[in-house]
Order: sequence, then structure tokens, then C-alpha cells
Amino acid sequence: MQVNRFEHPLNEKVRIYLRLEYLIRQMQHASELTDPWQHQLFFRALFDLLEILDQIQVKSELAKDLEKQRGRLKQWLNIEGVDQTALLALLDQLELAQHQLLTANRLGQELREDRFLGGIKQRLSIPGGSCCFDLPTLHHWLHLPLAHKQNDLTNWLSQIKELSVALNLWLKLVRESGQFQNQVARGGFFQHEADETSLIRLEICPSHGVYPMISGHRSRFAIRFMPFEEGTGIAETIEFKLAIC
Amino acid sequence: MQVNRFEHPLNEKVRIYLRLEYLIRQMQHASELTDPWQHQLFFRALFDLLEILDQIQVKSELAKDLEKQRGRLKQWLNIEGVDQTALLALLDQLELAQHQLLTANRLGQELREDRFLGGIKQRLSIPGGSCCFDLPTLHHWLHLPLAHKQNDLTNWLSQIKELSVALNLWLKLVRESGQFQNQVARGGFFQHEADETSLIRLEICPSHGVYPMISGHRSRFAIRFMPFEEGTGIAETIEFKLAIC
Repeated sequence: MQVNRFEHPLNEKVRIYLRLEYLIRQMQHASELTDPWQHQLFFRALFDLLEILDQIQVKSELAKDLEKQRGRLKQWLNIEGVDQTALLALLDQLELAQHQLLTANRLGQELREDRFLGGIKQRLSIPGGSCCFDLPTLHHWLHLPLAHKQNDLTNWLSQIKELSVALNLWLKLVRESGQFQNQVARGGFFQHEADETSLIRLEICPSHGVYPMISGHRSRFAIRFMPFEEGTGIAETIEFKLAIC
Repeated sequence: MQVNRFEHPLNEKVRIYLRLEYLIRQMQHASELTDPWQHQLFFRALFDLLEILDQIQVKSELAKDLEKQRGRLKQWLNIEGVDQTALLALLDQLELAQHQLLTANRLGQELREDRFLGGIKQRLSIPGGSCCFDLPTLHHWLHLPLAHKQNDLTNWLSQIKELSVALNLWLKLVRESGQFQNQVARGGFFQHEADETSLIRLEICPSHGVYPMISGHRSRFAIRFMPFEEGTGIAETIEFKLAIC
């Protein structure tokens, strides 16, 4: 059965991490396609990513978070019943990701300095500003052989590889820290007290015709289900699945 | 042989018209695709379009321009050797487009008032702001059946149909007013005196590895060909095709 999955961060840092993950996914997806308009998705995601990296010290924060995860995982060393081989491999993976992140150049620096990308960035903020007369270099690039363009896209993506690897690993561990459990909202409402929660994940069948509005912080959150079509009502009980991570 | 085509407006109004045409094309293209990220292209183009329509009185300007084209074409009535049937059909088409444009509601008004679209617009300006936790309504919409989404996209596009028809017709007539002719740039440079030119169109083989930087106004323009790869030289002569419209 198809379900819609929603994720909601309960602190600002996870919010940033989810945004970065979303933008990197968009870049990766757009870089694989051959549709001539697709480049817009790639470039917009890239410039959004650089803007976030300019505002926030992602590198040191994420390295600290990887360190914390390692600390948590180390508590399972030499505990009976815990797969020590898998644990050691994961600890190695975390250490490597952290090391590579910390020793990488300033995140996205080469992308910021790229003249071709810089020219595009300037124009994208103008409504309709990527016409061929605004950006003849982009127009020329778009008509280069596919292999050439994909080579460029791969190269640009490689500039944020360390970020991508570290982010995916950290988010994977956070997501795996919670299990989906059946829950019921009454009158479209559900609230919960939690402890040190950073992310909540929710699965709901689209046939309910509702979407969740989530608010809260690490120790308490509330979910209000809203009807997607204006004027329709909300069922007395709505079943959904929830993972608290 | 593959050629790259560049167009360059020689006045502000044509610049706006080309931007609008480009955005509408992007919307039409994105509305036909089923890729889940494609909606971003559609919504960005839509909001860019509305921003231009907010700034400029496109409706009355374009109606006046259609009227001028009719005036020009009427001079060919009853002239021997001119296909009168085709001419009358074209004049009817212009009159209809002009009438429908002028009698349409304020361009894009329903799109501006749409609550769903309004919510998306607010968030798109935030870097990475279309994550599921920013826009749960969009996330829900994206998981609706394809037919439902395409119905919405078709409906939104239909709100700017009169603009699209009028714009396409006017730009088609302008483009047809010039013929491509062979030209040669020496030392990467070409200039030309023209009379009441509104648009120049240029075709060049990508193997030259250059893109054109065009500047000028209705009575004179200059083209400077620039190497796409930094540090490469410019051929002494560059052949290209040019249409002055």
C-alpha cells in the first residue's frame, strides 16, 4: 500500500541537515537526467546549498555530531549479544567520514570561485533570467555533448562529496534510532512527550486526504492533521505510523 | 549539422516578451513530465511569470503590439501577388488573439489568489525551502495520482492561455520578419547598422567553441564572440548566420 512519508526536525540543526540532504539529492537526481531544462534544478539546488553553507558552520557542527554518535556507539563495545564486527565497521566508517570532512577544503569553495557558475548564480535571481540572451555561456554549455556536461556535473558534485557522505551517515543513524509504531490521532490531533528527540517521522495513507502540521521541540511535539481539500472534514480517528528518533 | 541558436532583444519590451515566452515554455514542458522533482521547475517558472506580470502592464502593451502588426499586414491587402486568403486568415487570428487578451481577467489573477500556490511561493525563496516539513501540502500534492496532478497543472496553465496565444503569435510574426543570412565576424567582432530592429537571431556551429555577447539598440548592434573555454583563442574569421527582425 502506498504511504506518504513526512519527516519533521525538532531542532534547528536537524532542519539544516535535512535541507542540505534534500538539496544534494536534487542535484544528484538532476545530474543524471538528460532533459534540457533539468539543469535549472541542478543549479538552483547548488546555489541554495552554497547559501546555507555560507550562513552556517556546517562542517564543524557535523563533525561534532559524528563524534557524538561514535561516543554513543562505543558504549556497545564488548557487550554480549552485540555484533562486534558490524559495530567496529560502523565506528571505522564514522571515523573516516569525520576525518575526511574535517580535512576537506572549505565546503563548496571551488564551486563559489567557479566563474561559469558565478555568472549563472547572478542571473537566476532575476525572474526568467536564464534566457539565452541573459546567459549565453549557459546556453552554449547546454548544447555541449552530453558526456561533457555530465563530466562537469559529476565534477561539481564531487566538490561536496565529504559533506554528502558525512550527512547521509549521520542521518541514517538518527533515522535508525526510531522504530515506526502504530498511532491514532483523535479529532485530527495527536501529541506526545518525548526525550531528546531530534526528528520525527510519520507515515500516513494518502487516502485519508490529510497532511500533518507538526510543531514542537525535543521534549514534546504535537501533530495536527489538516484536510488537503478545503472544506472537507477530518475523520474522528486517523491511523498513522510514527517513529521518534 | 547542429547549430546553436541565440536570440537577443534590442528593446526592453521584446526582452520581457522573450522572458515570458521562455517561462511559459518551461511550465508547459514541466507539466508534461512525470518526474517527481519536475514540479519545482513548473512552480518556479509560474512565480517568475507572475512577478513579471506584477511589474509590467503586459496585457495592454501586447494588445497594442498586435494592433500594430495588424496595421502593417493590412497594407498588403489587395496587393497583387500576395496570398489574400492566407493574409485574411492571419488578420482574423490577430484580431481574435487581441480580443481574447483584452477581455481576459487580469492576467494570472486566479493564480495569485490560489492558496495552495501562495503557500508554495512563500517558501520557495528560502534556500531548500520546499522540504516536506516546510511544505507538507506540496508533499501531499506530489503523492496524489498523476491524473489529479496533471489536471491541476493543465488548469493553472489555462489561466494564462490568452497571454500565451497572443505572445506566440506576435513573436512568430516578428521572427518571420527577418531571414537568416551568412555573415562573417573578423577578429571575433561584428557590427551592423539596422533600422527599427527589435530582435536579432544568430545561428552558430558549436564547434567554433564561442558564444556571442550582443549589445546594441534598434538602429545599431555589435556582436563579440567570446571563447567558452578560458584561455583559448578566437579564430580570425568566424562564419555564422544572422537574422535581423
